[in-house]
Amino acid sequence: MMIRFGCDYQEGCHPRILERLTKTNMEQTPGYGVDPHCERAKELIRKAVGLPEAEVHFLVGGTQTNTVIIKSFLSPCEGAVCVDSGHINVHESGAIESTGHKVLPLPGTEGLLDAAVLRRFLEEFHSDPTKEHRVQPGMVYISHPSEHGTLYTRRGLEELHAVCAEFGLPLFLDGARLGYGVMAPETDVTLKDIAELCDVFYIGGTKVGALFGEAVVMPKAGRIRNFRTLIKQQGGLLAKGRLLGIQFETLFEDGLYFEISKHAVRQALRIREAFEARGIPMLYNSVTNQQFPVLTQEQYDRLARDFAFDFWEKTEDGRLATRFCTSWATLPENVDALVSAAGML
Amino acid sequence: MMIRFGCDYQEGCHPRILERLTKTNMEQTPGYGVDPHCERAKELIRKAVGLPEAEVHFLVGGTQTNTVIIKSFLSPCEGAVCVDSGHINVHESGAIESTGHKVLPLPGTEGLLDAAVLRRFLEEFHSDPTKEHRVQPGMVYISHPSEHGTLYTRRGLEELHAVCAEFGLPLFLDGARLGYGVMAPETDVTLKDIAELCDVFYIGGTKVGALFGEAVVMPKAGRIRNFRTLIKQQGGLLAKGRLLGIQFETLFEDGLYFEISKHAVRQALRIREAFEARGIPMLYNSVTNQQFPVLTQEQYDRLARDFAFDFWEKTEDGRLATRFCTSWATLPENVDALVSAAGML
Amino acid sequence: MMIRFGCDYQEGCHPRILERLTKTNMEQTPGYGVDPHCERAKELIRKAVGLPEAEVHFLVGGTQTNTVIIKSFLSPCEGAVCVDSGHINVHESGAIESTGHKVLPLPGTEGLLDAAVLRRFLEEFHSDPTKEHRVQPGMVYISHPSEHGTLYTRRGLEELHAVCAEFGLPLFLDGARLGYGVMAPETDVTLKDIAELCDVFYIGGTKVGALFGEAVVMPKAGRIRNFRTLIKQQGGLLAKGRLLGIQFETLFEDGLYFEISKHAVRQALRIREAFEARGIPMLYNSVTNQQFPVLTQEQYDRLARDFAFDFWEKTEDGRLATRFCTSWATLPENVDALVSAAGML
Amino acid sequence: MMIRFGCDYQEGCHPRILERLTKTNMEQTPGYGVDPHCERAKELIRKAVGLPEAEVHFLVGGTQTNTVIIKSFLSPCEGAVCVDSGHINVHESGAIESTGHKVLPLPGTEGLLDAAVLRRFLEEFHSDPTKEHRVQPGMVYISHPSEHGTLYTRRGLEELHAVCAEFGLPLFLDGARLGYGVMAPETDVTLKDIAELCDVFYIGGTKVGALFGEAVVMPKAGRIRNFRTLIKQQGGLLAKGRLLGIQFETLFEDGLYFEISKHAVRQALRIREAFEARGIPMLYNSVTNQQFPVLTQEQYDRLARDFAFDFWEKTEDGRLATRFCTSWATLPENVDALVSAAGML
Repeated sequence: MMIRFGCDYQEGCHPRILERLTKTNMEQTPGYGVDPHCERAKELIRKAVGLPEAEVHFLVGGTQTNTVIIKSFLSPCEGAVCVDSGHINVHESGAIESTGHKVLPLPGTEGLLDAAVLRRFLEEFHSDPTKEHRVQPGMVYISHPSEHGTLYTRRGLEELHAVCAEFGLPLFLDGARLGYGVMAPETDVTLKDIAELCDVFYIGGTKVGALFGEAVVMPKAGRIRNFRTLIKQQGGLLAKGRLLGIQFETLFEDGLYFEISKHAVRQALRIREAFEARGIPMLYNSVTNQQFPVLTQEQYDRLARDFAFDFWEKTEDGRLATRFCTSWATLPENVDALVSAAGML
Repeated sequence: MMIRFGCDYQEGCHPRILERLTKTNMEQTPGYGVDPHCERAKELIRKAVGLPEAEVHFLVGGTQTNTVIIKSFLSPCEGAVCVDSGHINVHESGAIESTGHKVLPLPGTEGLLDAAVLRRFLEEFHSDPTKEHRVQPGMVYISHPSEHGTLYTRRGLEELHAVCAEFGLPLFLDGARLGYGVMAPETDVTLKDIAELCDVFYIGGTKVGALFGEAVVMPKAGRIRNFRTLIKQQGGLLAKGRLLGIQFETLFEDGLYFEISKHAVRQALRIREAFEARGIPMLYNSVTNQQFPVLTQEQYDRLARDFAFDFWEKTEDGRLATRFCTSWATLPENVDALVSAAGML
Repeated sequence: MMIRFGCDYQEGCHPRILERLTKTNMEQTPGYGVDPHCERAKELIRKAVGLPEAEVHFLVGGTQTNTVIIKSFLSPCEGAVCVDSGHINVHESGAIESTGHKVLPLPGTEGLLDAAVLRRFLEEFHSDPTKEHRVQPGMVYISHPSEHGTLYTRRGLEELHAVCAEFGLPLFLDGARLGYGVMAPETDVTLKDIAELCDVFYIGGTKVGALFGEAVVMPKAGRIRNFRTLIKQQGGLLAKGRLLGIQFETLFEDGLYFEISKHAVRQALRIREAFEARGIPMLYNSVTNQQFPVLTQEQYDRLARDFAFDFWEKTEDGRLATRFCTSWATLPENVDALVSAAGML
Repeated sequence: MMIRFGCDYQEGCHPRILERLTKTNMEQTPGYGVDPHCERAKELIRKAVGLPEAEVHFLVGGTQTNTVIIKSFLSPCEGAVCVDSGHINVHESGAIESTGHKVLPLPGTEGLLDAAVLRRFLEEFHSDPTKEHRVQPGMVYISHPSEHGTLYTRRGLEELHAVCAEFGLPLFLDGARLGYGVMAPETDVTLKDIAELCDVFYIGGTKVGALFGEAVVMPKAGRIRNFRTLIKQQGGLLAKGRLLGIQFETLFEDGLYFEISKHAVRQALRIREAFEARGIPMLYNSVTNQQFPVLTQEQYDRLARDFAFDFWEKTEDGRLATRFCTSWATLPENVDALVSAAGML
């Protein structure tokens, strides 16, 4: 049978979540996320990010979360600045534009937004005598890890924060894979750093152990009026909201979120090492749970017999860049098999 | 401890769903609803509605589903006609308008849209010399059961279908509580009738046994191009789409959906009878899982000691209309307790 | 030849405007409204409304102006409250909804919004435990004169202003026919009153002497960031913006706007008197340039031989309510003819 | 006094238009463009484009026209493909996105879209397994002349037409400066070619002799349902619609549109020659009414004493690219002065 490394949402959820859902199943709670489980999960998250006053909301999925946040922070003629490979720019079917806002793409550096690039764009914009006829930059969107598995440094984040502050732009961090970022061995960015340097961010559950769910954190509570109504309007207010509370309770009450993230990254780095040991280069310098080996057609075909993985893009010299993902659910023995297969390429 | 009748989404889900989620948890499937569970669930639904060629899609919640369907069927200057109490008109935080479309409310009859009222509106519209300056009626939205728990008759639906066909308007039926409608003892409307008379409808899971999930059925497949992209754009394409497939498989493989719906309606009618036996009238003539007794303040206060229920509205003579809901999860002994308490009012 | 009273935009513009356009035709000015004519026109308007610091912008037409203002003042889940006959609710093809916002209609009193009705709605809204799931009232839209030709009193406006202030809602006055309002003989509302009591309003040119053009006044300058960009985004920033400046210069430099408005109202009241003298009632108690005689079919047919006018609606007893409009362009001899014809009905 | 070449909308309109407006001023006509002047203008345009059955509509300005057309042709998850320098992508304040649609920019060749580039993009799109999660290409937008003053060849247009037809995408040509394109001496593209090869296009008036106005032509009538309502919704249906009819009547009844366009191009080419004679290069190879000389700072400063023109961008070697525009209104003696000044740089 095929062993799958195609994405980080191919299994259900961490078994402890299912156990908890089963145990609480017949509890009767009010709907829409105003129940004791959500309250407790919010407390746990406030604690984890080190902000006892932060506002926390739970949504179902990433595209939905990006859309709600961006439409909430922007006025109608403003757009969201991001790197050209940003998820909102390429893989959300125009969700951001569907709410009336342009995505303003800048060239990325391995999927990351460089503060100098951002500053140059903003300076150019503000020196343009026709800027009134352009979309106004209204916020900055970044992902950590990026779509390429790369990570900001603490210094890189600080610089972005500084440019954003100077130009009055909120900084929004998409953390769909946040666990895999903060638990990477090389990173110097903690969850608390993110909470300190961003105006809004979210902690992804869908790709990190939950059935579904993203926890939005706004360090400065009350910044957006009627945020729950905005979630509802976008179809993101889950009727049985406690399902989100129960999942994040489980993930954050004793460090499960971090533990499973660490596991996934460790397995991913084993994969990377195995490929590199065979002289197979990586497309991006990812230090998280996604790895991008560049294979020859022959290598590709041989691996594809036993393993499922993503074709990513064709390189200029005709080789095939691929993506292998690990997750909380990745079995070490499956990685053993892949490592062994890579060793024979 | 309080016994709760406040809504039909206060528990988790039918235990068989949780068992199935647990059993399938470590299966590896592709994301976004193109997995074997979704395929099988679609087949089961096609069979249940009697349309082997129908197009079926799974979404997470009702507001999201209404929004995606309406934005998919309308051109930019068209609106959705519905009764003034329609969910899209009052309780979705402007979701429909957020996609650019006006809701065109007509007076309802106990929450139902009368074909004659619809025809009169459309005739008035088309005879108005300034109609170019108005929102064009582009589709008709109804709910079955309605927000008031009432049901269309087969004849009523046929008449609506005929008016819609005459004026070229798609007929969309919101079935968030569809099970409770088709399993009401008095109804002459079956799931197959709905599939025959509507252009699009959905079978609600959130309020009928699932953790979440709505199954959209389009009898004429291919009617809407790129429907999956439209779902994605609205943030409704669940990454772990199989969760929806697994739930609808469980509900439809051996009639569980209908069985639990029947149970809920039976319990609701016991509640209605108990109130009526004490001379307490119902605000609406609901034959489904929501009942609306009109209480004096004293009756209200006495019941509120042991039971949770919704305040609905104040009547003109100062009494309090309330809402009691049952569901797949309602325990008969809890209804016994309520029946007994009602008997002592 | 037919004499036309069908609307107040059936001729070109006041001759002095055409003369001025001709005289200035070959001047070279920058585009988009940053030219000396616009600057001077803004100064004249600031003076006319008694607010030396007010922000003034020129747009082309009414629907466009309503749309830009409303989308600028509302956040995404907010709607605009108005009377059910409000222009934005019925005759703008869903322009407001096309920007994502619901229009929240309340019952009107002869086309006017009563402060008590507004207050009751807002109190009901804020006492509704499910208000999070509704569209949030975000501003109040009124017209002066109303669609029915009726006018607010100074007291009525003050009361609306007070309710709006109490609930934190901007008050927006659509003045598409503002001249005909402030020059009605019976009114106690001046342009300065409006400037004092509203958060934003506009002075209509299209229906009052100009070829086209509406002058938006925001008493508190800087309230909306990037307002010119919002106008541009909505397609309302005229390339040859000076055309608007030149027109409003002409209308406001020596009171032409008021003089022609007075003329129109005087002619309209002559029409009203002539009908009433024959016992023909008016549908609304209009004191401005639109009059609404209720005719029998026979009276209607006789008048329709020589005069063009609007059919408005059928009354319950089967008579025909009609609309006759005057404007800056109405020739007294044409009114003489109508008065004489009315006298013979 | 400064001689201005800053843009092509700095004067009023061709004197014959003002004369006609003055002559027709007191005519009484119905509003919103259903008057004899509009009818006649439509006939003249149908004749000029060689399509007796074409549908013609008049709008006020370019951004508005682009927005209405694009929102009319696209379904909600589709975007408009254009070159990165396309007006809709950079200078319309996000108007397209405000209607929910992404602009999909491709690299341009001197402002023009190459059919091979378009095909490559579409092939890449359709071969992408994740295309469901991307914005669907829904139409193609081009400008003729482009923003750089360059022109398509007949062959280039045919190739674009062929790719569009193959992929089922409507081809939309923005003709804000169309006259200056079809009257360029070197072009092999006529108005009739455009009418044959595009699904929708417009003939710009604002920049070619009118006070304002754009004439939309849809070769296949009835393609868009309710197009007038869509115009109204976008705020583009002028109340005194005849103003547009009168202007286009004047421009098209005896070839005035073409004659003044020819004049403008001739003057622009004189400017180009004068600069090139001094060894001053052009940034783009424009053959129409906009010219882009690349000046040294010293040259720039010397010219700026007597002439107004646009700074365009800084070149890599630090020189200043500029823009000089001519129009129907450009006086030959002003060009003489510029030619003479250029000769002394």
